[in-house]
Amino acid sequence: MDDAARGKQAAARAAVALIDSGMRLGLGTGSTMAFVLDLIAERRARETLDVVGVPTSERTRDHAARLGIPLTDLDHVDALDLAIDGADEVATGTLDLIKGLGGALLREKIVQQAARRFVVVADEGKVVTRLGSHAPLPVEVVPFAHAATARAIAALGIVPRLRMDAAAPYRTDNGNVIYDCHGIDAAGAPAALQSRLLAIAGVVETGLFLGVTERAIIGRADGGSTEMLPG
Amino acid sequence: MDDAARGKQAAARAAVALIDSGMRLGLGTGSTMAFVLDLIAERRARETLDVVGVPTSERTRDHAARLGIPLTDLDHVDALDLAIDGADEVATGTLDLIKGLGGALLREKIVQQAARRFVVVADEGKVVTRLGSHAPLPVEVVPFAHAATARAIAALGIVPRLRMDAAAPYRTDNGNVIYDCHGIDAAGAPAALQSRLLAIAGVVETGLFLGVTERAIIGRADGGSTEMLPG
Repeated sequence: MDDAARGKQAAARAAVALIDSGMRLGLGTGSTMAFVLDLIAERRARETLDVVGVPTSERTRDHAARLGIPLTDLDHVDALDLAIDGADEVATGTLDLIKGLGGALLREKIVQQAARRFVVVADEGKVVTRLGSHAPLPVEVVPFAHAATARAIAALGIVPRLRMDAAAPYRTDNGNVIYDCHGIDAAGAPAALQSRLLAIAGVVETGLFLGVTERAIIGRADGGSTEMLPG
Repeated sequence: MDDAARGKQAAARAAVALIDSGMRLGLGTGSTMAFVLDLIAERRARETLDVVGVPTSERTRDHAARLGIPLTDLDHVDALDLAIDGADEVATGTLDLIKGLGGALLREKIVQQAARRFVVVADEGKVVTRLGSHAPLPVEVVPFAHAATARAIAALGIVPRLRMDAAAPYRTDNGNVIYDCHGIDAAGAPAALQSRLLAIAGVVETGLFLGVTERAIIGRADGGSTEMLPG
């Protein structure tokens, strides 16, 4: 196991320790979340841990189902007690996030929004002082006239690039396209950028998760983890 | 022709007089826009009126094509000189609008956004002093977990009702569902409501068109029309 994987597993272990029996859980998507699912299954093999999960992607649904974790969806539960998810970037201080390099940002945000508590798991490589330092910001856009929507995005001073899947535009689970936007670290405060992006007709959602993280659990290469609280 | 139809035709006539040869036009959707299309075709039969239109719906595309009006789309033109569209409500003073009872709000807004000038045509029955007085506000929502999105909308103090098409939820051209939201006239300033709605993950767009109307041409039952400017 390499350093990043060891860090991811360490973060996952600390997050899974937050789960109590009876909880309805939001289950995010990504490589760190894969460790979370494995460790939930481990706890369920050792103890009574009566939980039900709402997955944010088909990938997570399949993995959780193989492990025997009970699943439901947001048409069947009103609210979630705790959602756990990874991130592509975590900003120190605010714990604001960029998510969506995996393409599931909209479902991840709908699940986060339904959760009373939102906990992020990541390895040290994801921690930044300014969002956009390493990762582009994924923006989900309706296919109709998406080039016109991209022109409106570019007018905000950032650089949208259409995400491709071989020769065709990548499509999300919702049938939309993604523009990966570069240069957002120079585009001012994330909250203002988020409002301006959402005000553009054709923009469905962005990968900015602002002011919603209860805590971030950052796994270290030495197999330990550090908990960050906002503020 | 009844009073409303006479008013719509009068508004359409005044709007079509704004069109100059060489313009790229946004062509909205609805019963008043049907008169606009007919009158564009009438002018083209009498004079050289070299225009190209971007339709906001299949209905408008079909109607314009039957009349021989040249058409294109936003993948082929960068910007539009003038967009003309109807509205379900027009607020006096601001000329803010509710649109989308016809279900095309997202495409209508993308076309408006690409236009340098946006002109509204309506009959007198659409003029209100406060948005939401007569019409509900249509909000386009992604199908995934739409009941959870509706709960987040209801938490703003308005009443979302899922639009149905016989026994199944109505689907927009973009594959989304519509919640018609009641009680927005009591939910505070439209701009604040718009921001709060767009901040909800799962909300794609709303039928609020705020601060974008250059002028509203209101047709009267007597066959004349009144032009309203914002402010």
